[in-house]
Amino acid sequence: MDKKQTLLPLAISFGEPAGIGSDLILSLYKKRKKYALPAFIVYGNLEFLKNRAKRLGLDIDFVDCKPQEANDNFASALPVFNIDGEIFDSPAQINTQSAPVVIKAIKEAVADVKAKKCRAIITAPIHKEALYSAGFKYPGHTEFLASLCAKNADAPTPIMMLAHEKYRAVPLTIHIALKDVPAQISFEKIIKTALIVEQDLKNKFNIKNPRIGIVGLNPHAGENGTIGVEEKTIIEPAISELQKRGINAIGPLVADTIFYPPHWEQYDCIIGMYHDQALIPIKTLAFDKGVNITLGLPIIRTSPDHGTAFDLAGSGKASINSMLAAILQADEMSKT
Amino acid sequence: MDKKQTLLPLAISFGEPAGIGSDLILSLYKKRKKYALPAFIVYGNLEFLKNRAKRLGLDIDFVDCKPQEANDNFASALPVFNIDGEIFDSPAQINTQSAPVVIKAIKEAVADVKAKKCRAIITAPIHKEALYSAGFKYPGHTEFLASLCAKNADAPTPIMMLAHEKYRAVPLTIHIALKDVPAQISFEKIIKTALIVEQDLKNKFNIKNPRIGIVGLNPHAGENGTIGVEEKTIIEPAISELQKRGINAIGPLVADTIFYPPHWEQYDCIIGMYHDQALIPIKTLAFDKGVNITLGLPIIRTSPDHGTAFDLAGSGKASINSMLAAILQADEMSKT
Repeated sequence: MDKKQTLLPLAISFGEPAGIGSDLILSLYKKRKKYALPAFIVYGNLEFLKNRAKRLGLDIDFVDCKPQEANDNFASALPVFNIDGEIFDSPAQINTQSAPVVIKAIKEAVADVKAKKCRAIITAPIHKEALYSAGFKYPGHTEFLASLCAKNADAPTPIMMLAHEKYRAVPLTIHIALKDVPAQISFEKIIKTALIVEQDLKNKFNIKNPRIGIVGLNPHAGENGTIGVEEKTIIEPAISELQKRGINAIGPLVADTIFYPPHWEQYDCIIGMYHDQALIPIKTLAFDKGVNITLGLPIIRTSPDHGTAFDLAGSGKASINSMLAAILQADEMSKT
Repeated sequence: MDKKQTLLPLAISFGEPAGIGSDLILSLYKKRKKYALPAFIVYGNLEFLKNRAKRLGLDIDFVDCKPQEANDNFASALPVFNIDGEIFDSPAQINTQSAPVVIKAIKEAVADVKAKKCRAIITAPIHKEALYSAGFKYPGHTEFLASLCAKNADAPTPIMMLAHEKYRAVPLTIHIALKDVPAQISFEKIIKTALIVEQDLKNKFNIKNPRIGIVGLNPHAGENGTIGVEEKTIIEPAISELQKRGINAIGPLVADTIFYPPHWEQYDCIIGMYHDQALIPIKTLAFDKGVNITLGLPIIRTSPDHGTAFDLAGSGKASINSMLAAILQADEMSKT
């Protein structure tokens, strides 16, 4: 028996039906041999998936099943955990009927990963605004997943990591205006983020004593206090505290030179202070091959590093690269 | 007669003697055939250069000459425009005796480029603090060069461009703390910078109707005003004004996706709003091969994109890549 067959399947939530998520899942299932993909099961609406496959001209057999049956079926038919509902195959057209199905698909997938029926979840992109009508009240996909993982109403703190091969970056602050960044950088936030990053590098990436680089906020990491003070007042003390706690934290690093691949690869992850500082390097190197990994959750979750791309939905023209990388990354992280 | 011999020589100022500048010049002269280097003349202290060559074990003949004689000598001996003074070959040791020689070397080189005895200047790195004793009062090398190019006491506005092959980036603001960046972004500064960039892309790079990308300040270029407002209040109006003036300005572009090489190459230059936004991408792609080009001056000036690197001076271990790129870039820009 192939080793892969002894592993639990991966769960993929189908995301927003008006977007490209299902296109990518279907295209990749069709190419499962070429990419030696591990068995997965799609949480979504079966009838819709059949229609989208027809639209894309993909000749695919489907099987409505539970995760326990996914491995045995995967070679001959795409396993689907069917979520009831009527979903129109209308690319780029948001439909309120879809919302409860999209939400339930994520809930069922997370429940099956938590119940150890699947070993990790890959989420196709959602369109937040399309879900509000169904009572979705989270700032984003990730916060929703965190809430589904809450114990006693305490949701874990999710941390966004972008990864491409051995290059990994985490932004300390994310979708906030640049002018608000300096005030959001704090000793506590650096400590909390670095501790989660280190735990997950150990537990989910199997890295012993991970090297965590922490970047300065200012040009040249403040050049010894002459170009900004946050390195001296916040970042250096936080790094010292992390080191005291036995964390292999290094910095403040100089942002414009540390992401050169031969430098970057000396760290298991680099924490940047803000969105563009952490994301420019990874997207410059690997625009459509990056994977979004959510750290800090009790489950393994990856997603492609792009949105719903309504303009490409149903066209068959969307790049499969990031979704492929997300599946392979989830596979790699959940093998042991 | 070789075409190169019909061109004026390039001028190279030798920079801080305690640093790696002279090491790189000497190493590159030794490899002039390998890299098919155009004739150049070094503005610096001849005796010091001889001593540094000896220290590096480089067997080089020198000739003390004027730029008019550089082409004829270059094949057999390194042309040096000798600046008198006693300079010790003491790597990493700053010596106040060097300061007036370092300054005079730059002045003479600029004067000869302005007088069309040389066609461009490449400057080896200086160490500002080492020059204060000799009355140097500029924030940096570039401002000093601008003052040497002043007409009627009006110094031109120098603009820093970082380039690697066809990838060019200009930061709108440079060595200031991140918290000060938003207040320094202005309509006027964007207009002024873009006009200089466009003029120089036309005149120094021979690019007709250059495409100038202008990046947003905030993540996702503000996502339609929901993550910061500077795109709406400053950057978009500036781009509209530039377009009205016939400039091919495009933006606000999204910082984390625009520097992926297939995207970047659709622009002749991309203007970023701050140091790390513009410099992270170029150094991630081409850490030690980038060239610093000063736009806005009446002369062509390039320099390697690194500092004096005292720790490597005299060791022969410093990478020649950026200095080589600076010479080839100056050659390319001044051929026609």
